[in-house]
Amino acid sequence: MSKVEEIQNYLQQNQIDAAFVTTPDNVFYVSGFKSNPHERLLGVMIFKNAEPFLICPKMEIPDAKAAGWSYEVVGHQDTENSMEVLAQTIKDRNVNPSAFAIEKAHLIVERFEALQQSFPEANFVRLDEKINALRVIKDEHELEKLRKAAELADYAIEVGCKEIAEGKTEMEIVTAIESAIQEKGCKMSFETTVLSGPKTASPHGIPGSRKIEKGDMVLFDLGVNYDGYCSDITRTVAFGEPSEAQKEIYHTVLAANTNAIAAVKPGVRAMELDKIARDTIADAGFGEYFTHRLGHGLGISVHEFPSVTGANELIMEEGMVFTIEPGIYKSDVTGVRIEDDVVVTKDGVEVLTKFQKELIVL
Amino acid sequence: MSKVEEIQNYLQQNQIDAAFVTTPDNVFYVSGFKSNPHERLLGVMIFKNAEPFLICPKMEIPDAKAAGWSYEVVGHQDTENSMEVLAQTIKDRNVNPSAFAIEKAHLIVERFEALQQSFPEANFVRLDEKINALRVIKDEHELEKLRKAAELADYAIEVGCKEIAEGKTEMEIVTAIESAIQEKGCKMSFETTVLSGPKTASPHGIPGSRKIEKGDMVLFDLGVNYDGYCSDITRTVAFGEPSEAQKEIYHTVLAANTNAIAAVKPGVRAMELDKIARDTIADAGFGEYFTHRLGHGLGISVHEFPSVTGANELIMEEGMVFTIEPGIYKSDVTGVRIEDDVVVTKDGVEVLTKFQKELIVL
Repeated sequence: MSKVEEIQNYLQQNQIDAAFVTTPDNVFYVSGFKSNPHERLLGVMIFKNAEPFLICPKMEIPDAKAAGWSYEVVGHQDTENSMEVLAQTIKDRNVNPSAFAIEKAHLIVERFEALQQSFPEANFVRLDEKINALRVIKDEHELEKLRKAAELADYAIEVGCKEIAEGKTEMEIVTAIESAIQEKGCKMSFETTVLSGPKTASPHGIPGSRKIEKGDMVLFDLGVNYDGYCSDITRTVAFGEPSEAQKEIYHTVLAANTNAIAAVKPGVRAMELDKIARDTIADAGFGEYFTHRLGHGLGISVHEFPSVTGANELIMEEGMVFTIEPGIYKSDVTGVRIEDDVVVTKDGVEVLTKFQKELIVL
Repeated sequence: MSKVEEIQNYLQQNQIDAAFVTTPDNVFYVSGFKSNPHERLLGVMIFKNAEPFLICPKMEIPDAKAAGWSYEVVGHQDTENSMEVLAQTIKDRNVNPSAFAIEKAHLIVERFEALQQSFPEANFVRLDEKINALRVIKDEHELEKLRKAAELADYAIEVGCKEIAEGKTEMEIVTAIESAIQEKGCKMSFETTVLSGPKTASPHGIPGSRKIEKGDMVLFDLGVNYDGYCSDITRTVAFGEPSEAQKEIYHTVLAANTNAIAAVKPGVRAMELDKIARDTIADAGFGEYFTHRLGHGLGISVHEFPSVTGANELIMEEGMVFTIEPGIYKSDVTGVRIEDDVVVTKDGVEVLTKFQKELIVL
């Protein structure tokens, strides 16, 4: 069954008249058409009882068709009010939705208010959870792409490790990694991070002109997009012999990573995984320095459903893909994060990222 | 006056109690803190009569402070409901907004509904136009960064032209350009586009493994981010002697570009500029092949206010910066687009991008 048909079924079962898919990654998921519309309107309208359509900037109509969308494509021009074009196309299908599903975690207020104005009797309900539920379970076709994306991420880390040398800047290493991936015909799935020395202690630090010195730890956080699907890996390596304090942090993070991964299987709750990693780190006395969630879902988006936090009661199922990425950020010693991409299998876990995790000393 | 103070003044003058700035580029503009929060909450709350605060993921607090934000930074953790943290912080300041300004072109419906629930008596008004009005006029400090960003874009085109050779793929040329810019310590401001042969006729085409052949036209669309400010340039060159039909299209687009630029000065309307370019192209018989607006504002964002369309009555003022980028996309001949970044000066125009526009035949 196509993704459009799955959503049509959902609308019929739940007596919802229309669903408007607007997150670009969700538009890609249901239509095969990948586009970054910037501020312009892009979306897929699916109805309980009418022909779906895709709406996009007029100049992208050929691309949408080439991507395999077989229903109508409605174009809008910059001189038009795209929300009026949308409303008119809905009305032209003789649909006057009383229950209207929208992506409340994506649609912006001004478009919401325009829909309210065009369909004053509509009750707007959330579509988000339904699309998340569809996207969260990856089929074999998607897993194959995720495996390849992870393999490329492993390769990128390998390239990065080889580039580490006294006096080289973080940005030079970023360039070498990105060039190597581009030579493979792929793009990074997000901005490559290479942080060195004290900068490793900033979980969202930005690579710059800092030069690598002997004695630095170096943290890589990167991912590759393979045919629309993303990987996301973090490795931390030592350039020169690390101190005992650095080694202790490294081994604590590694234990948190492997303990959490060992617990992944159908039936475990997201929050349990987070707790296993957090307890490992807290028991070693570093609890206050693990300042973020354990991980996040991964697929078409680098960050997607499910969020692996201490508060998420979600029960893991076969086919879910997410990151396990504990970290300790202690500015007077070092930051360390070790991140893998994992799939819940029928009875356990498949780890997609395979680059060595025993501490590498270069 | 700081940007925060300018917004405070605006709130006082308009009897608005609170303003919530949420677009990451606007957060950067008012706070100096640049961050991509992904799905997490990031924003700056500014009040008519209370101390402003910045809200961000807890782990980014040090970065926000390091960026120079001197008021309070409120952190939220992944296990918390960030909108409740926000509402509580507002209430802790004894503010119960009756007029509440939000970015309706950015805030998502679920956060809007959370605000409505926390402040049921509030009337939510648009903040968008005020921030646009502030951002649209660039000061000399900002112009200096935009000039440097444009200079780097010129350099990137030069690199790209040198890379063109029989059998080279579009992606190989992209890699060479991006590496050259990274070596300068900068990043691209958006994904670099290199399209060759028939692909030039797709205004939003994606570079791939197509190999350059003698007789191709090659279109570059790229930009560089310099210290938070973006350039955006397009050039189309010929690899081998172009046909008469290709030359005619090239010269028509060039005339549209230069005619529109010649008309830029304070007092002209955005729509007039669009019309000048569109008429030039229509008079040459290619009207139906110019399928997009003339240009867009440029600054912290690659696409920002103002939109240069046939419908925008906005009167240009000194300090506005935008692109002029007419194009003709005729799939049986070629696509050509020529894009420059321009500033409205006191009595005319300054063109920031300076790379040659006479047709280059390689």
